[in-house]
Amino acid sequence: MKILITGGAGFIGSNLVDYLAKKKSITRIEVLDNLSHSTKSNLRYHFDNPIFKLHVADLLDSKSVNRILSRGFDMVFHLAANPDAQIGVTNPRHDLEQETLATFNLLEAMRLAKVKKIVFSSSGTIYGETPVIPLSENYGPSFPISMYGAGKLAAEGLVTAYCGTFEFKSWIFRFANVVGSRRKNGVVSDFIRKLKSDPKELQVLGDGSQQKPYILVDDVVEGMWFVINKADDKINFYNLGVKSSTKVSQIAKMVINEMGLAGVKIIYTGGKRGWPGDIPQVRYNVGKINKLGWRARLESDEAVESAIKTLINEL
Amino acid sequence: MKILITGGAGFIGSNLVDYLAKKKSITRIEVLDNLSHSTKSNLRYHFDNPIFKLHVADLLDSKSVNRILSRGFDMVFHLAANPDAQIGVTNPRHDLEQETLATFNLLEAMRLAKVKKIVFSSSGTIYGETPVIPLSENYGPSFPISMYGAGKLAAEGLVTAYCGTFEFKSWIFRFANVVGSRRKNGVVSDFIRKLKSDPKELQVLGDGSQQKPYILVDDVVEGMWFVINKADDKINFYNLGVKSSTKVSQIAKMVINEMGLAGVKIIYTGGKRGWPGDIPQVRYNVGKINKLGWRARLESDEAVESAIKTLINEL
Repeated sequence: MKILITGGAGFIGSNLVDYLAKKKSITRIEVLDNLSHSTKSNLRYHFDNPIFKLHVADLLDSKSVNRILSRGFDMVFHLAANPDAQIGVTNPRHDLEQETLATFNLLEAMRLAKVKKIVFSSSGTIYGETPVIPLSENYGPSFPISMYGAGKLAAEGLVTAYCGTFEFKSWIFRFANVVGSRRKNGVVSDFIRKLKSDPKELQVLGDGSQQKPYILVDDVVEGMWFVINKADDKINFYNLGVKSSTKVSQIAKMVINEMGLAGVKIIYTGGKRGWPGDIPQVRYNVGKINKLGWRARLESDEAVESAIKTLINEL
Repeated sequence: MKILITGGAGFIGSNLVDYLAKKKSITRIEVLDNLSHSTKSNLRYHFDNPIFKLHVADLLDSKSVNRILSRGFDMVFHLAANPDAQIGVTNPRHDLEQETLATFNLLEAMRLAKVKKIVFSSSGTIYGETPVIPLSENYGPSFPISMYGAGKLAAEGLVTAYCGTFEFKSWIFRFANVVGSRRKNGVVSDFIRKLKSDPKELQVLGDGSQQKPYILVDDVVEGMWFVINKADDKINFYNLGVKSSTKVSQIAKMVINEMGLAGVKIIYTGGKRGWPGDIPQVRYNVGKINKLGWRARLESDEAVESAIKTLINEL
């Protein structure tokens, strides 16, 4: 099976490359990445592998995308996206480009090259801030409150429209907060970086009561592969996360402990959310993927703990 | 109240202008329209009205949009869109531009001009082809199967993200099939035009069993105004349609009868849907808007009948 991974040099993408490189059924792994938030070194174990190839290209450049897709693939993992949902607050156009337009260009290139299977990394942010939690996959309406969530929702709609109009087949995953090796942003990495710079003080966005489910990247890539091989509808869609969740104030304490620090002054910026468009209380129902036969190895607290240990050394 | 209507020269837009021009609370009605699918003559009753102004401009031209919005408005009715959902089959980029990018440019111009109330004409096509009908507003997941539906879903997500991130307020209406005076495309107008050109034969897309709810444009503009004045959440969202529905084969018979024709040969192109991305069986639950205190005057068959009578003279 020949596979293309957009955003394959990034956090989740490069972990996926590591995982797929061990599968015998995969005869070709190519990566399309603009390296805007990632580095070639994330892929360092694969440059000598004859079935591997990196295309440094931007999804906003249709010509390059069309050229790369015309090489012929059986399936595309579309992971490329803006990795930082806060950017939309100051630059509302960013997610329109990085999620919506990038996804459109990819789908068009796939249509022209007759590549019709897409795995799409969506996000729980498409659900918005809802009166009920935990959220099941059939929750409606989908009213995202961040530009990032709007971009992911738009991309989901494009994917399903290509399924309905041009006979594509899709696997849509709504990720919880993914943590682990090579993640550069997000709460865990931010805390570690801040404390490395100033071990006396830690600023925390919001009041620390924000509570979300965290899943380890190793579980995410394994979970995707499991579902792709098991679910065979025209549109397959799953929350990919854990039932449990972890408070931001708890993550701060875990990072401080793991770094062996004491007497750190924690300063909360206040307010129930970290930034405008942030959803403070998130829980997912993962019964659908569990019923299919898969469950994350690590629950939320364990995933955070594991990510902290890895990232302290990496950052 | 100063109002801007995008697409205000079009089918629904110009009927809305007619309706609002009679309201004493409205002190200014301005229209932004690129006249791509509409004509100035739809607004002919208003050119002498001192509170009325037409801006011929394109929503894809940000500079013009920013300039017009900077004139200051209390509320924007965003009705501009691609009026023909079939176009996406041959030109997939069209709905990305006419729904998604156009809506983004409008929202950005509104944000910059501090105009924060938007009424958005969405569509039942965002629900896609679902295992259950009739569809309530909280149906999920939203998996549109047409590029038009994907564009409308993307636009909904942008509207709600601006509500969540930039403190906008919105009224989102998911329209059923709207029929009536000045509609140029769609099944009723198509049949009339075809039969005027050849009164012996009528080609019908699909097998004629497609069945959808039709609502008269007069009911649509009145329903929007009712809800805007009654519902006051941050995001207000309503199906705007009727509970009943009409079969395409029935519409063909109604048009033939109303035109006084006999012995017309009806040729069905076959297949359950009119075109790829068409949803053959559509019903809406309109209990939410009914409960708020509003109901369409005409049910589906009556709306079609009324539209036929009007359009026979207009087309």
